[in-house]
Amino acid sequence: MIKVAIDCQLTYKVTENTEFIFEIEVAHHPWQTILNETLNIHPKGNIRHFNRDHDLNRLIRITAQQGQLALNYKAEVELHIPPRDQTLVENEIVDLPSDTLFYLAPSRFCESDLIAGMSQRTFGEISKGYHRVQAICDWIYENVIYESGSSDNTTTARDILVNRAGVCRDFAHLGIAICRSLNIPARFVFGYMPFYTAQPDFHAIFEAYLGDQWVLFDATKMGPIDQFVRVGTGLDAKDVPFSTFYGAVELIDIQPKIHQLIK
Amino acid sequence: MIKVAIDCQLTYKVTENTEFIFEIEVAHHPWQTILNETLNIHPKGNIRHFNRDHDLNRLIRITAQQGQLALNYKAEVELHIPPRDQTLVENEIVDLPSDTLFYLAPSRFCESDLIAGMSQRTFGEISKGYHRVQAICDWIYENVIYESGSSDNTTTARDILVNRAGVCRDFAHLGIAICRSLNIPARFVFGYMPFYTAQPDFHAIFEAYLGDQWVLFDATKMGPIDQFVRVGTGLDAKDVPFSTFYGAVELIDIQPKIHQLIK
Amino acid sequence: MIKVAIDCQLTYKVTENTEFIFEIEVAHHPWQTILNETLNIHPKGNIRHFNRDHDLNRLIRITAQQGQLALNYKAEVELHIPPRDQTLVENEIVDLPSDTLFYLAPSRFCESDLIAGMSQRTFGEISKGYHRVQAICDWIYENVIYESGSSDNTTTARDILVNRAGVCRDFAHLGIAICRSLNIPARFVFGYMPFYTAQPDFHAIFEAYLGDQWVLFDATKMGPIDQFVRVGTGLDAKDVPFSTFYGAVELIDIQPKIHQLIK
Amino acid sequence: MIKVAIDCQLTYKVTENTEFIFEIEVAHHPWQTILNETLNIHPKGNIRHFNRDHDLNRLIRITAQQGQLALNYKAEVELHIPPRDQTLVENEIVDLPSDTLFYLAPSRFCESDLIAGMSQRTFGEISKGYHRVQAICDWIYENVIYESGSSDNTTTARDILVNRAGVCRDFAHLGIAICRSLNIPARFVFGYMPFYTAQPDFHAIFEAYLGDQWVLFDATKMGPIDQFVRVGTGLDAKDVPFSTFYGAVELIDIQPKIHQLIK
Repeated sequence: MIKVAIDCQLTYKVTENTEFIFEIEVAHHPWQTILNETLNIHPKGNIRHFNRDHDLNRLIRITAQQGQLALNYKAEVELHIPPRDQTLVENEIVDLPSDTLFYLAPSRFCESDLIAGMSQRTFGEISKGYHRVQAICDWIYENVIYESGSSDNTTTARDILVNRAGVCRDFAHLGIAICRSLNIPARFVFGYMPFYTAQPDFHAIFEAYLGDQWVLFDATKMGPIDQFVRVGTGLDAKDVPFSTFYGAVELIDIQPKIHQLIK
Repeated sequence: MIKVAIDCQLTYKVTENTEFIFEIEVAHHPWQTILNETLNIHPKGNIRHFNRDHDLNRLIRITAQQGQLALNYKAEVELHIPPRDQTLVENEIVDLPSDTLFYLAPSRFCESDLIAGMSQRTFGEISKGYHRVQAICDWIYENVIYESGSSDNTTTARDILVNRAGVCRDFAHLGIAICRSLNIPARFVFGYMPFYTAQPDFHAIFEAYLGDQWVLFDATKMGPIDQFVRVGTGLDAKDVPFSTFYGAVELIDIQPKIHQLIK
Repeated sequence: MIKVAIDCQLTYKVTENTEFIFEIEVAHHPWQTILNETLNIHPKGNIRHFNRDHDLNRLIRITAQQGQLALNYKAEVELHIPPRDQTLVENEIVDLPSDTLFYLAPSRFCESDLIAGMSQRTFGEISKGYHRVQAICDWIYENVIYESGSSDNTTTARDILVNRAGVCRDFAHLGIAICRSLNIPARFVFGYMPFYTAQPDFHAIFEAYLGDQWVLFDATKMGPIDQFVRVGTGLDAKDVPFSTFYGAVELIDIQPKIHQLIK
Repeated sequence: MIKVAIDCQLTYKVTENTEFIFEIEVAHHPWQTILNETLNIHPKGNIRHFNRDHDLNRLIRITAQQGQLALNYKAEVELHIPPRDQTLVENEIVDLPSDTLFYLAPSRFCESDLIAGMSQRTFGEISKGYHRVQAICDWIYENVIYESGSSDNTTTARDILVNRAGVCRDFAHLGIAICRSLNIPARFVFGYMPFYTAQPDFHAIFEAYLGDQWVLFDATKMGPIDQFVRVGTGLDAKDVPFSTFYGAVELIDIQPKIHQLIK
């Protein structure tokens, strides 16, 4: 069992009254047990908590006045992500649970409907199952360069096929779009990742429904999946931004730390 | 109070085993009371019912064998859509209920993020509130031609701005995309409509959140909004297709009738 | 007869050796007689002149070293643009001169093939001829806002239909794309314009082939067409940039003056 | 020296009076000597010949009445395409002949401006010269499947990066777009090709300017480049269609035969 500590600091300069929605808290999810957590917001103000998708997404709404806004979220979490089972099968549609069907449809950043030809040509001949989704990740890893600043927040999976560069959200979007176009339910997962060779940070990966379970995949191969802490789950990045704001702000400091606790 | 009768007949020729998902039943929604309803499926087979979004979308899953598949859904419904209140205001973001915020984001067919400039230029100067959403509908009505076959199921709001033609789903998508880009929550509503000058049929409209309520708008102006019976509600058309199938089928007959009952 | 003086000053800071191609000289064209012209380039260096399209485009190639590069082009020109003949007809294809057929095809920024539906819907019912092209200009003028910075050098006619804002090149591109999609040859014209309410500047307009002649149209309505001095003619903006460079430069000063000479 | 015979038969059913433009005649080009040629058109009618681009493109215009239209073009051609010189260099811009600069710009189907990032990432590190262009062809060959019907006549180079399938014109468009984005002049070449494993047919390839010459490249690797007979040369496919028509026709028969003559 893995135990990790989260310490996420966000500081903004608010230049006009602004409505924020944050999603930075550890999700309530069977693979992770929150041992303790604290959220400090300064200045205290109008704060509202709400959930979406039956508790899977926990959101914080803050009405911020002009001035500085600082959030600090700390948590200790026990992780028990199931070990990877490479024998998992792709389901026939008839065998998919009804609540996974929603994740077969295209979404804003994952136009599975527009890349069906590419998916069939590139992955149609590969045997179905866990290894096909892994092959999709490998293909993305080999064909797309991870390059900060090479994409923006309107970049879609289709754009990534053209640009052949992106950041974690783009890698995830492309993986999701390909999976869906092959009738594999897939969704976007946002959270904290302790990277192999970089500072810990927010990270975006995806999960595909195989056998009787959702399985996490990370086409960037940048960090240990079994130490990833889930914050948000959705159709794509638009569903789970760590911060949305309506107003005028400047990001002063962002430190989404995660580290493994010595046991 | 309006009372209507639904009689929806769908018949398919199934040429290989096919998994269907249908959404044709009248939604559980405060504006409509289902007096009675019956669903007949022939042949009887593997049928599963499930809901999405806290009961707002009722879905029917059918595993169909080769041969013919016929559905007949009948219902009598009492409608009490609130009278239109033209004094409704647009909310400041801070005043929006948390569960409406989700409907501010772009979606597959409503790229509000890509048309923000157009929206500001065309509607930015209009006074906020009910009349602005009505002005959006009027603009769409004047600038987009209703033309069967002018769009397909990958056509987006952005495409409609180029093509200047579409069908009901396209009119709704454009209305939604413009509203969202102006920070008005908006969503797609699918249902039954008795048209002014055409046979009753499925219809797609949208609703915008104004004041403390969702308000229905129909940029096509093709039927009486207070006689519209809601079936599905979602981000856009991909969330509420009346029929999705995985397999090989041919649509033989489609008759989504609705008529007002003499009181 | 109108006589105008051109005085065009361009100054660049060249930060690494750079190859420039300029198109700023008054075109050799039957509608304009160059009375005199001088081109001063400082520092003198590797300068090559060449023409394209049978002399219609005059280009200057300069291999610039690090440092400052200054061009000054002066000319006096007699203009005799034919008076507008509103009775001009659209030609049947069979009646078009062969050298105009090239201007029926789509080009990089004028995707006439992608907007054919829109063109037919919006202008298909208007009587053919001069007035239809004028109607296209009027429509663009009413539906597109002139807004500096609202487009960039990859913006196409199709994008303008979405954004509903652009600069002169975008207005011209849209006019051209619509004309071509209606089988009216149309091309991009770049030159000097003394504006009604702004400083003289480079300007982009278009011309359509009607009757037995090319006729200039300006959907921006920002200046007197009969005082427009032609520099370049092409399929679209990519054919006639006033300046292209390969290297690293900074534009220091740009003053493309034109004024009417007292007669 | 290679000697080939062309025998191109086109037959159309014309259902309303139609204006055709054909480009099927062997180009006047230093690499090919036309020993003899005959063009038979039935019925004789209004036929006009014209050239574009200083004779590089030879066009035939036919005003066809309702009924059948048959063209037969026969030619014997001596080919002397220069042997491939793999030591050819890419030119610095300063060293490019002025008449090649035009082929650096984007065009309708070759959006070199939109794929510059992809080109740099994928080919930016490869040593400049003949082998880089060959590497581009190899990459296309490995990443794009040749599949009839996978693209249409609005498909662009950017689309091919997404779809990963196309026909000869698409392979050429992508090669051209990549070359241009790396500052290598490139253009589209249309003609007759005796394929290795298929019937002879029209074919589209491209040429890049290296050293002091244009060099033919064929990313499809489907036929012997030194037996390719050039018909048309342009920016992309829109410049050199073998047939354009304005009216209503049905293609009855198309047989663009080419075979090597026994010497």
